[in-house]
Amino acid sequence: MNKVTIYDISKKLNISAATVSRALNNNPKISLKTRELVMKTAAEMNYEQNTLALALKSGKSNTVGILVPYMDRSFFSSVIRGIEEELYPHGYHVIICQTRDDAKSEVQNINTLLNAQVDGIFMSVSKTTKDTLHIDRVLQKGIPLIFFDRKKNLPGVSSVTIDDFNGAYMSVEHLIRQGCKRIAHFMGNINLEIYKDRYNGYLKALTDYNLPYSKDYIVQTNSKVESGTAAVKKLMKLPEPPDAIFSSSDFTALGAVQELKKTGIRVPEDICISGFSNESFTQYTEPTMTTVDQTPIKMGKMSARVFLEQIDEEISVAIEKKVVLSPQLIIRDSSNRTGRE
Amino acid sequence: MNKVTIYDISKKLNISAATVSRALNNNPKISLKTRELVMKTAAEMNYEQNTLALALKSGKSNTVGILVPYMDRSFFSSVIRGIEEELYPHGYHVIICQTRDDAKSEVQNINTLLNAQVDGIFMSVSKTTKDTLHIDRVLQKGIPLIFFDRKKNLPGVSSVTIDDFNGAYMSVEHLIRQGCKRIAHFMGNINLEIYKDRYNGYLKALTDYNLPYSKDYIVQTNSKVESGTAAVKKLMKLPEPPDAIFSSSDFTALGAVQELKKTGIRVPEDICISGFSNESFTQYTEPTMTTVDQTPIKMGKMSARVFLEQIDEEISVAIEKKVVLSPQLIIRDSSNRTGRE
Repeated sequence: MNKVTIYDISKKLNISAATVSRALNNNPKISLKTRELVMKTAAEMNYEQNTLALALKSGKSNTVGILVPYMDRSFFSSVIRGIEEELYPHGYHVIICQTRDDAKSEVQNINTLLNAQVDGIFMSVSKTTKDTLHIDRVLQKGIPLIFFDRKKNLPGVSSVTIDDFNGAYMSVEHLIRQGCKRIAHFMGNINLEIYKDRYNGYLKALTDYNLPYSKDYIVQTNSKVESGTAAVKKLMKLPEPPDAIFSSSDFTALGAVQELKKTGIRVPEDICISGFSNESFTQYTEPTMTTVDQTPIKMGKMSARVFLEQIDEEISVAIEKKVVLSPQLIIRDSSNRTGRE
Repeated sequence: MNKVTIYDISKKLNISAATVSRALNNNPKISLKTRELVMKTAAEMNYEQNTLALALKSGKSNTVGILVPYMDRSFFSSVIRGIEEELYPHGYHVIICQTRDDAKSEVQNINTLLNAQVDGIFMSVSKTTKDTLHIDRVLQKGIPLIFFDRKKNLPGVSSVTIDDFNGAYMSVEHLIRQGCKRIAHFMGNINLEIYKDRYNGYLKALTDYNLPYSKDYIVQTNSKVESGTAAVKKLMKLPEPPDAIFSSSDFTALGAVQELKKTGIRVPEDICISGFSNESFTQYTEPTMTTVDQTPIKMGKMSARVFLEQIDEEISVAIEKKVVLSPQLIIRDSSNRTGRE
């Protein structure tokens, strides 16, 4: 099948190819009548514009890229959904890359998105990312970049995050209200601000309620189920085991619950557990799991709005927005002793 | 910051820009020694090739696109992982689009991927896709397309699927061995081959074991938890309710289990339940859920291998491969009465 070119249209209408090209690009130098005629003819002849060539020319591909550590985590897939829902009516399409928390893969994915001529990049940085040269490249090219959830502090870059400190504080406060006094913490990788904030929110709640802080009660974990299993085993061997765990991750909280049930320790009667992220499985476990909802769809929609503002030429391109959303504590059976909250 | 160009390299080495360009493209007309010298110098000077220009020239972007209905379903995210793991060592990067089972979105995402100059497309078709004009466009452009899991029957197009018929047959056979005699089926949208195959596998097992078939026992569902809840309510109102349900989806199976537990009906003692897909939550529910694993990582790897074969110029480009993988029945507590299997 031969593709219809602008030369075919030019021949048919007996006007120059340059005029056809200008008309197709809606150039006001060509009369409205001619523009309409050319477009109508192009449509009739099934002419297909080379949108890539067009993108190179106009600098717009109407595609944005989203970079996440794992696209199958409920949190990230919901943020993506929020971005898609907000950008779709504006004619934008979304392509997604995942880094699996690998810094090298993050660099390569940024290149892939740049090569795909995206108009903007939304990203949540990988746990292992240290330098930001690849991010600097995006900024040098003048492509809007918006961080969500996991961010780096870079001048001029907007971000949409949630108040992790407060999410942690609310969780620990709730555990204290359930009568818990020896509250342990499954701590994430505090190279990432979100985990540092959760840790600090935990500490602040203990201090405010005059509860003792013990190093033995802080266990370093990654966001895997097995990591939670190992961590709770360690805690339960202590001379004075904790009566609650505030976990920085739903996956480690799940690992703890599974292990405790196996050894006959009752949740929440003997020990209260709370997680973080409101992963979809937390509503299906037994007991159902207390967690912190990070309002990911809202986060996605808000990130998209920040992007739309940035590309709006009426507004300055140099705006830097730092949006911080409020998380929501979801109290379920794994920590609810009193049934009162 | 000024970007290093081939002219800078040419000046530094005192050779022509054309030679530099040929050397960077590894043209054998340039001596190996010169090629190595140019590449070394380019690396030292932080020369950055315009990969898009390169892609336009060579027709290769080293990027492939994956189109899935939902990227947050364990099954699809695992297939993606398999594709990534297999293609990564070959220098390919992966961008992902999701259709949310919307045919219109599928068409637009195909355009987005084509505009991003992908070297190949892996896709699992949306439930609502009827015509295949958008797929024909991909084929007309000579871009390799590989279907996985949900496919359309198109001449010349390779696919990697699992034997859904057999997965269903094994499930129902297992339920029969547990002593179940009135086996209901949560049927998916049989416009899709996979659900049709599961339904036919169910029928064949009933026939082979001389069990009665009843229309009342077939309930049309979509893959949502609520759909399973509604379906089981309908079934339990029958004068003779079923003693087992073979569900074409883990989500509907979960909805059924939740509803049955609420009404005091015991799983598996009173009714055995089995799902399909081995979603990650199936190992965390109580009881843990019997399901069919579709070996998604293997499916992804296999799809990637089919793609690599297709682009291998040594082999004919016109090969059409139909790979059918064997599923695996995973017996868990929701259907295991005897503890023997």
